[in-house]
Amino acid sequence: MASVDTSLPPKPTGAAADFAAAHADEHALKLYGGWFCPFVQRSWIVLHEKEIPHQYVEINPYHKAPEFLALNPRGLVPTLAVPTSGSGAGGGGEEKPLYESTIICEFLDEAYNEEKYGTPLLPRGNTPQETYLRARCRLWIDHVGNKIVPGFYRVLQHTPGKDYTIEEARANFLNQIKTFVKEMDDSGPWFLGEKFSLVDVMLAPWAKRLFLIDHYKPGGTGIPAEGTAGDDDEEIWKRWRVWFDAITKRKSVLDTWSADEMYIEAYKRYAEDTSQSQAAQATRKGERLP
Amino acid sequence: MASVDTSLPPKPTGAAADFAAAHADEHALKLYGGWFCPFVQRSWIVLHEKEIPHQYVEINPYHKAPEFLALNPRGLVPTLAVPTSGSGAGGGGEEKPLYESTIICEFLDEAYNEEKYGTPLLPRGNTPQETYLRARCRLWIDHVGNKIVPGFYRVLQHTPGKDYTIEEARANFLNQIKTFVKEMDDSGPWFLGEKFSLVDVMLAPWAKRLFLIDHYKPGGTGIPAEGTAGDDDEEIWKRWRVWFDAITKRKSVLDTWSADEMYIEAYKRYAEDTSQSQAAQATRKGERLP
Repeated sequence: MASVDTSLPPKPTGAAADFAAAHADEHALKLYGGWFCPFVQRSWIVLHEKEIPHQYVEINPYHKAPEFLALNPRGLVPTLAVPTSGSGAGGGGEEKPLYESTIICEFLDEAYNEEKYGTPLLPRGNTPQETYLRARCRLWIDHVGNKIVPGFYRVLQHTPGKDYTIEEARANFLNQIKTFVKEMDDSGPWFLGEKFSLVDVMLAPWAKRLFLIDHYKPGGTGIPAEGTAGDDDEEIWKRWRVWFDAITKRKSVLDTWSADEMYIEAYKRYAEDTSQSQAAQATRKGERLP
Repeated sequence: MASVDTSLPPKPTGAAADFAAAHADEHALKLYGGWFCPFVQRSWIVLHEKEIPHQYVEINPYHKAPEFLALNPRGLVPTLAVPTSGSGAGGGGEEKPLYESTIICEFLDEAYNEEKYGTPLLPRGNTPQETYLRARCRLWIDHVGNKIVPGFYRVLQHTPGKDYTIEEARANFLNQIKTFVKEMDDSGPWFLGEKFSLVDVMLAPWAKRLFLIDHYKPGGTGIPAEGTAGDDDEEIWKRWRVWFDAITKRKSVLDTWSADEMYIEAYKRYAEDTSQSQAAQATRKGERLP
C-alpha cells in the first residue's frame, strides 16, 4: 500500500535543500526526518531558531535505513538522536532516541540553554508567574496538536461519502482556530505578544500548509478575507492575519520549507484520502493522530 | 442522557473522604474534581505527595456550580485554580484556571519546588543527562495517556456487537502495558527505579481501577498470575507485579481512594457502555480521549 506515495521527491527542495545541505556533515546530534512532514518541520524550526549545531538526515519513509531502524525500531519520524553519556533509567550507550515532536522541541529548548542559543522558546524560571505561563503555553500547544491539527486533516482529506460534510469539517476547524486566536496576546504578532515561543512553532507547519486546502478543496479553508467576517469575528480574524503573516515569513519557517509545488504533489494523496501516512490513516479511521 | 449516572454518591468515601475533609478550608489553590475521576486522582496524588496546601472542591459533574463554570466555562475536571498576580499573555485577575491532568501535575511539580515539598517528581536540572531523562519521562507519560489508558476503556467498555472482540481489546491493552514495563528500570519498584516520579503517578489511578475489569468482564484483565506467563513474558510480568504492588499501596494513592464498592457502582455504566462521561463517549466513538 505504501508504494502509492513513492512518486514524492526523495529530498528537500528550495530553501530547505540549502538548510539541509548546510547541516549534512556528521554530527552527534541528528534529526531524522522527511522533508514534507509537518511534525518534522517543528523540530527543524527549533534547531534553526536556536542555531543548534546538528546533522539533518533525510529518511525515505518507504525504505527506512537499517541504521535508523536500529535507533528507533518503530520507525517514527521525527526522531532525534541525542548524544549523552549513559545515565538514568534505560541508560547505556552513547546515542539515544527521542521522538514525538512536542517532546523533541521542548527537549531542545531545555538542553540548549546557554546564552548563545538565544531566548528560551518556553518561559523559564520558577516564579509563580513563570510556571503558570509555561503551563499555559503547554495548554495551547495541546490545543494545537489535539484540536487544530486533526481539524486540518479532516478538511484536507474530506471526500464525498464521508459521514460528515466538508462544511461541518470546515466549521469545526475554524472554530478551533478562533478559540486559539482568542487566547493570543492582543499586541501581537506572536501568541505571547512580542515573544516568539514554542506555541508559535507548533502551528507554523500547518499555517504554511493551509494553501493546500485552498488548492484542493471546494470553498478552501473558509478563513474570511479582511472586512468580510462581520461582528466580533472581524477582530479575531484580524489578529489571526497578524500572526499568520508573521509566522509564514519567519526565517526559520521559510528556511525549512521546500518548493510550494512539491507540497502540492506530496499532499495530493491526502486530498484524495488515499495517503498511507500515519496522520492520514488515523484521520480516515476517526482515531487520534499518532 | 447524563441523568443515567446520577445514582453515584455525591462525595468521596473511605480514605478519600478524610483527605478531602482535611482540605476543605478556603485556600487560594483549589483543585476542582470528581472523586471517581482517575484524571482528577492524578492531580490529587501530586498534591498529597508534595504536601501542598490546597482546597479540594468536589464538583458534581451533572450540576456544575456557577462559580466553577465562571472559572472554567468548558466545565472540565480536573481544574486547578491558581493564585497568581496577573502577568504574561492573558494576564489579569488573581485566580487562573489550569486543566489537563498532565499539565496540572507538571505545573504543581515545577511551582512547588522548595525543599519542603520534597524531591521533584520529574528530574530537574539542565545537564544533558537530566534534560534527556526528563524528555524520556514525558515520552512514557505520553504512552500511558495515549496507549494504556485508552486500552483500559476499550476493554472495560467492551460489549457484544462491537467491531472488535474483547480478546483483541485485551491483547492490545496487555501489549501496551508490556511495552511500558520493558522501559522500567530493572531494580524497581518505580519506573525510574528508586525514584518515584510523575510517570508512576500517571498510571496509578488505572492500576487501582484494574479490578473493575476483573469484576465486570469475562476473562478479566488477562494479566497472568505468577508462573503462568511463560518464556520472556514471565520476567515482564514479574516486574509489573513489583510496580503494581508498590503503586497500589502508596500512601498518596490510598488516601485519594474511596471505598472499592463505590467504584464498582460508578463504573457499572462504563461496563455496560452507557456512561456519558467524556472518556466513555470518546471510547465508544473510537475517538481519542479528551
